[in-house]
Amino acid sequence: MNGAESLVKTLLANGVDTCFANPGTSEMHFVAALDRIPGMRCVLGLFEGVVTGAADGYARMADKPAATLLHCGPGLANGLANLHNARRAQTPVVNIIGDQATYHRPLDAPLTADTEGWARPVSVWTRTATRAAAVGADAAAAVQAACAAPGGVASLILPSDVCWDAGGVVAAPLPPLPVPKVSPDAVQQAARVLRSGQPTLVVLAGSALREAPLADAHRIAAATGARLITPMSNARVSRGRGRLAVDRVPYSGDVARDKLAGIRNVILVGAPAPVTFFAYPGKSPRPYPEDAAVHVLARPEEDLGEALARLADEVVARNAPLPTMDAGAPTPEPARGAVTSENVARTLSALLPEQAIVVEESVSFGRAFYPGTVHAAPHDWLQLTGGAIGDGLPLAVGAAVAAPGRRVVSLQADGSAMYTLQSLWTMAREKLDVTVVLLANRKYAILLGELAGVGANPGKTAMDMLDIGNPDLDWVKLANGMGVEGARAKDMESFADLFRMANGRKGPFLIELVI
Amino acid sequence: MNGAESLVKTLLANGVDTCFANPGTSEMHFVAALDRIPGMRCVLGLFEGVVTGAADGYARMADKPAATLLHCGPGLANGLANLHNARRAQTPVVNIIGDQATYHRPLDAPLTADTEGWARPVSVWTRTATRAAAVGADAAAAVQAACAAPGGVASLILPSDVCWDAGGVVAAPLPPLPVPKVSPDAVQQAARVLRSGQPTLVVLAGSALREAPLADAHRIAAATGARLITPMSNARVSRGRGRLAVDRVPYSGDVARDKLAGIRNVILVGAPAPVTFFAYPGKSPRPYPEDAAVHVLARPEEDLGEALARLADEVVARNAPLPTMDAGAPTPEPARGAVTSENVARTLSALLPEQAIVVEESVSFGRAFYPGTVHAAPHDWLQLTGGAIGDGLPLAVGAAVAAPGRRVVSLQADGSAMYTLQSLWTMAREKLDVTVVLLANRKYAILLGELAGVGANPGKTAMDMLDIGNPDLDWVKLANGMGVEGARAKDMESFADLFRMANGRKGPFLIELVI
Repeated sequence: MNGAESLVKTLLANGVDTCFANPGTSEMHFVAALDRIPGMRCVLGLFEGVVTGAADGYARMADKPAATLLHCGPGLANGLANLHNARRAQTPVVNIIGDQATYHRPLDAPLTADTEGWARPVSVWTRTATRAAAVGADAAAAVQAACAAPGGVASLILPSDVCWDAGGVVAAPLPPLPVPKVSPDAVQQAARVLRSGQPTLVVLAGSALREAPLADAHRIAAATGARLITPMSNARVSRGRGRLAVDRVPYSGDVARDKLAGIRNVILVGAPAPVTFFAYPGKSPRPYPEDAAVHVLARPEEDLGEALARLADEVVARNAPLPTMDAGAPTPEPARGAVTSENVARTLSALLPEQAIVVEESVSFGRAFYPGTVHAAPHDWLQLTGGAIGDGLPLAVGAAVAAPGRRVVSLQADGSAMYTLQSLWTMAREKLDVTVVLLANRKYAILLGELAGVGANPGKTAMDMLDIGNPDLDWVKLANGMGVEGARAKDMESFADLFRMANGRKGPFLIELVI
Repeated sequence: MNGAESLVKTLLANGVDTCFANPGTSEMHFVAALDRIPGMRCVLGLFEGVVTGAADGYARMADKPAATLLHCGPGLANGLANLHNARRAQTPVVNIIGDQATYHRPLDAPLTADTEGWARPVSVWTRTATRAAAVGADAAAAVQAACAAPGGVASLILPSDVCWDAGGVVAAPLPPLPVPKVSPDAVQQAARVLRSGQPTLVVLAGSALREAPLADAHRIAAATGARLITPMSNARVSRGRGRLAVDRVPYSGDVARDKLAGIRNVILVGAPAPVTFFAYPGKSPRPYPEDAAVHVLARPEEDLGEALARLADEVVARNAPLPTMDAGAPTPEPARGAVTSENVARTLSALLPEQAIVVEESVSFGRAFYPGTVHAAPHDWLQLTGGAIGDGLPLAVGAAVAAPGRRVVSLQADGSAMYTLQSLWTMAREKLDVTVVLLANRKYAILLGELAGVGANPGKTAMDMLDIGNPDLDWVKLANGMGVEGARAKDMESFADLFRMANGRKGPFLIELVI
């Protein structure tokens, strides 16, 4: 058994049975091993950003990691932006990078690059394998590291000779690393703050956004008057009709500071202290009052569900009734009339399939989507977590691979879609049940706002840098060119018809919605 | 004057008047400054790999650097693969990366990443600006560093507050750093080797491939019997009818070792000692005999032209006649019949416009292109230098911006084209005179050879990872979707017709050649 075979067998033994790949020469033994060992589903991406974003989307829905397969330092580099997003999402990823043979690397052949140096900033664990006999153990360690709470990218660099040499040994799974419990002091401290009667904000992130911890958080809020909030962007939120809703920190620092005015305490549950996405001249970088006290109930790597349960036990009876959701909510109907963010949200709310997976990278136009879909059929909502645009289509690929039978709805801004449009080809090849709603405003609209935000008045040259029309992108042709059917919607009526039709089909469909 | 304005004015004062850009929020003051200061041509790319590859192609033809404008660590990351190629090409690039404000970075907002850490491996010079008053001086230092022989990527990271703060100072150009001359000892040693009568290989790279140094190299070879060769991939070679030709080290180590059997001495002129692209089990990593002695006439940063001139003076009269080129070469005619590499080369040879710029990323199918075009009209030949595929279309963008009036012919494999297909949109927007010959074999053909090279027999799973058909990409639709006209050629006759027509037009045209 060579090193590559021991690697594939170890991944399977560790429950990693899906690999998103864009291989090259140094990965040929891994590819060859796939033929000899059944059980690994390999999904090809025609660009590494597709591969890494798909691995992120897969693990967000599967609650276990996929492997990637990337080619040398530059192949890794092409996948870094979406690994950055995965890092911010705390997604487990077993990130495998084939590289030059151990004895070839010092010769500095053209493709040789600083693979470890590029991997480290996005990884919780980085290791370069050095011999075939240890690759199995290296892979088991990578899986363990990726899955350690809260989850992260474990990068395993595989020199080609380590793959082709004989002597591979399959490694059994390592025990999961224990999830630390929060200290009684942290719970007591949070309870004291909540009982103080001062306006208090509880910031929930990561695994605190699943149904059970959210219920505890809502009991706490109902009993103490605390406000619940999540970061602006989250890896996965379970929401929709009958589920407990939580608001987000607004993107705009001005809007956020208005919304959070008067807050005296901030309690963090697996979340960092909120910060504005960018700095602006003369403005606070914090969306909450500067003089608010910040407390930590639980760090991201701690057991968030247990922390909220214990805090709920402190401040409120465990079986206290939950707030009533959806009271008085009208039955949503598809919108007619002008193509606005609010109208698109209404149509989504009316027509979103049960248990849909919404992948949202709608940037500026999507402002009404999240609040406007709170009463839609139950669904999961996945977002761009690290601000590196070009994550939406790859996340949709990965989510669809992880959750067959559930419709993926990709709400996708055009400028961002261009970064990883190769995703459409993988959707076609794998016949993934994805409805892409391509929001075509033909500009980097968010930057127009940002330009105003920094106090600049755009002239012709500046406008040229923010305008992605001239020529207009034709998304139906781009989709067709990669084997995905598509159509253009120019009004809300045709959008509703296309959206209903697309969601009822097998396989992908792209709707270009001109906004 | 704010920092951003001092930056733009300093770049212009230093002769940098072209900027390839994909800006974001942190770059808005730079973008705003462009409106107020005339003279900077800004070219938008819809993905950072387009931006960095275009900056590389621009400088290869303009012999001076362009600036890039990238957005934070993840935006840089998307451009790293082509910066890796630029590093291997020794191309001067002033690589500007906007980033979080100095006081915002410690707050670790979602987009915050290790920008310096990612930049350093591809850069000869990396600096993060810290105050508006010094940005001008930082920019002048970046230009000086990028242009220091042999040329490289100078990465200047610009926190947003350094751009918006007042107090910017325009910096005058710094004097170019001197180009070191080779020592008399190195010349004497090379001359001794050449006079020894032993079979000797002279490896020429970088600026040694321009016309005057090549002439000296040919005089040396004619007088001493030495063989001339270049690395397999080169930043720019001036070649074609009436020009002196030099062979390349073959990609295949086996073929190369056959070709270079018996060589006793290797003399390096601005080149690293040749190494095979990858390692293969049981094979030498060197394409020349392992027992050959390696001598350095000139390191890449030394004056290669002067070194060759002095060596020529040592071993041969300066005015010795040059070898006759093109003797007996037939007038090329467009090929008919089957679509083969040799036939495409014949048609290129017959129809290549005078002073064309050929950008070649033809990978496996292009094996006959380089030898087969040696008698084509005079042209420059630009290659993928670092093996990070996805450089061809961006190089074509940059070359066309640098050399208006010259036709750019992009010989482009389909798998590689997918990495940076967004380049087509920039070609349409800027109306660049580029003929893209898209070689559609619908597979990662080179990897089939590589799989055999490592001794593996591909089965179904492996073949799926190397097959980029299913579904087939439709390159005419993809081009149309980005505003570029195109047509499909299915035989040599229609290829010749389309190629002639495309080269006679203004603006870009894509020919999908099904191979």
